Order: sequence, then structure tokens, then C-alpha cells
Amino acid sequence: MRELTDGDSLRLLATVRFGRMVVNRHSVPMIRPANHLVEGDDLIIYASLGGAPLYPDRQVVAYEADTIDHETQLGWCVILTGPAEVVGDDEEVARYERLTDPWLPGARRRILRMCPDVVTGIELVGAAGVPRSANGS
Amino acid sequence: MRELTDGDSLRLLATVRFGRMVVNRHSVPMIRPANHLVEGDDLIIYASLGGAPLYPDRQVVAYEADTIDHETQLGWCVILTGPAEVVGDDEEVARYERLTDPWLPGARRRILRMCPDVVTGIELVGAAGVPRSANGS
Repeated sequence: MRELTDGDSLRLLATVRFGRMVVNRHSVPMIRPANHLVEGDDLIIYASLGGAPLYPDRQVVAYEADTIDHETQLGWCVILTGPAEVVGDDEEVARYERLTDPWLPGARRRILRMCPDVVTGIELVGAAGVPRSANGS
Repeated sequence: MRELTDGDSLRLLATVRFGRMVVNRHSVPMIRPANHLVEGDDLIIYASLGGAPLYPDRQVVAYEADTIDHETQLGWCVILTGPAEVVGDDEEVARYERLTDPWLPGARRRILRMCPDVVTGIELVGAAGVPRSANGS
């Protein structure tokens, strides 16, 4: 295992289109798959919490994406933690909807912008020391 | 997308060996990859929170595993939520260590037993309606 720099972590995160968003709901941890987009230092999350009426606005969320392979047990894992807010401006929402086409299911989708305070990235490398991400996977 | 029964969700979860554990730490959501084992209706989590001194003992945790493919956008996603406790009995710890060989990195590993209150499972099926999990992936 080797630790990744913040820059490498964000670059890897930008190579995939989905991850998992984590929020506290009434002190209970809640996790849902979500599509995302890296924009500069920010993470744009296309979040769907199912029938949940409340979205984490101005609240700390965590977001994880990885390419860890069930067979080879190799890949990378990136976790961002920081405050997120719902993007409320109609023009911004329209811009983000043009930028990507979220494919994970879910009604009542909201777009969140997260400003990461903490970036954690690890790479699981094989016995030969060859990182899986070097293959572009 | 189709929803999975609790039984199907647990059976799929048992076909893979890792997922992501979510806990609240000082009101901040924290997510870490972890190896797991389904034992009856319980989930055994081989948790590593890095240098964190505290483990979620008698606290609600969430656990997610999926086989969603970055390319095909197909697969399944199962989420369990419920109270977990650290397995403290030495003989039980030894038994769980014999039952599986956790391969995700991390010092200070603890074994948690979670009794799921809520089981959520979805399957993302392709245009042909063929579930990816039917291929065993």
C-alpha cells in the first residue's frame, strides 16, 4: 500500500464517474452511490437520497470512490471529507446538468458542491509493485 | 433498476469480500474500505480506522458493498445499517481470524459484529434486462 498525494488523489477521482456519498441523518450514518465531477478543487456530487426530504446543506459529508478489484485486490481508494452545500442557483444547476449525465438511479436528485478539507488516497499495489492505476483502470 | 429482497441482498453481499464501513466520528461521517463476512443474519466487519483510537462499539454503522462497473454501469449495491459492537472475546476473535484472511491494509484492526436493522439492495440491469450479478460478477 502507498499513500497518494492530494493532487494524485483528485486526478484519480476525476477518472471515474461514480462513488459513494456519506452523510449523517439524525446521527445515523447514511451512504448512497452517486455520480460525481471534479471541478478544480471542488467535488460536484449528483446526489440522490431516495425519498429523503432533507439534503445535507452546509453540512460535512464524506465521499469515497475506488477501483479496488474484487479478484486482484488491487486498485486505489480516495476519500474526501468537507462541507457541502446544495447548488441552488438555476443557471449553475443547468450548467452542471450539461457537464455530466448522471446515470445512477434516483428520484429527487440534488447537486451538491463539496469543498474538501481532508483528502485521503491510497493505492493497493501488487507483489510486483505495479500500481493498478498505471494501467488506466 | 430493481429492488432486491433482504435475502437476495445478503446472498449477494456474501459473494464479495470487501465493502465500505461508515461511522460517525465526532459528528463527522467517516468511511473506510473493509473486508467482511456474512454469518447468518450478522455482518462481521474486519475494520481498520487507521490511527483512530476509538472504534464504534455499540453504535450504529452503515456498510456498503457493490459490484457497479465503471464501464458498463451495471451491477448491484447493498447497504446494511444497524448497531455494531467490537468482538472482544479472544476465542471469537481467533475464530473470525481463521474464517477469513482480510487483505485490506490497516493497522489496529478490530472485528465488529453488526446486526442489520435495515437492508437496502438494488440491482442495475442493462437494456436487455439481464442482471450483471447473474454472471457471477
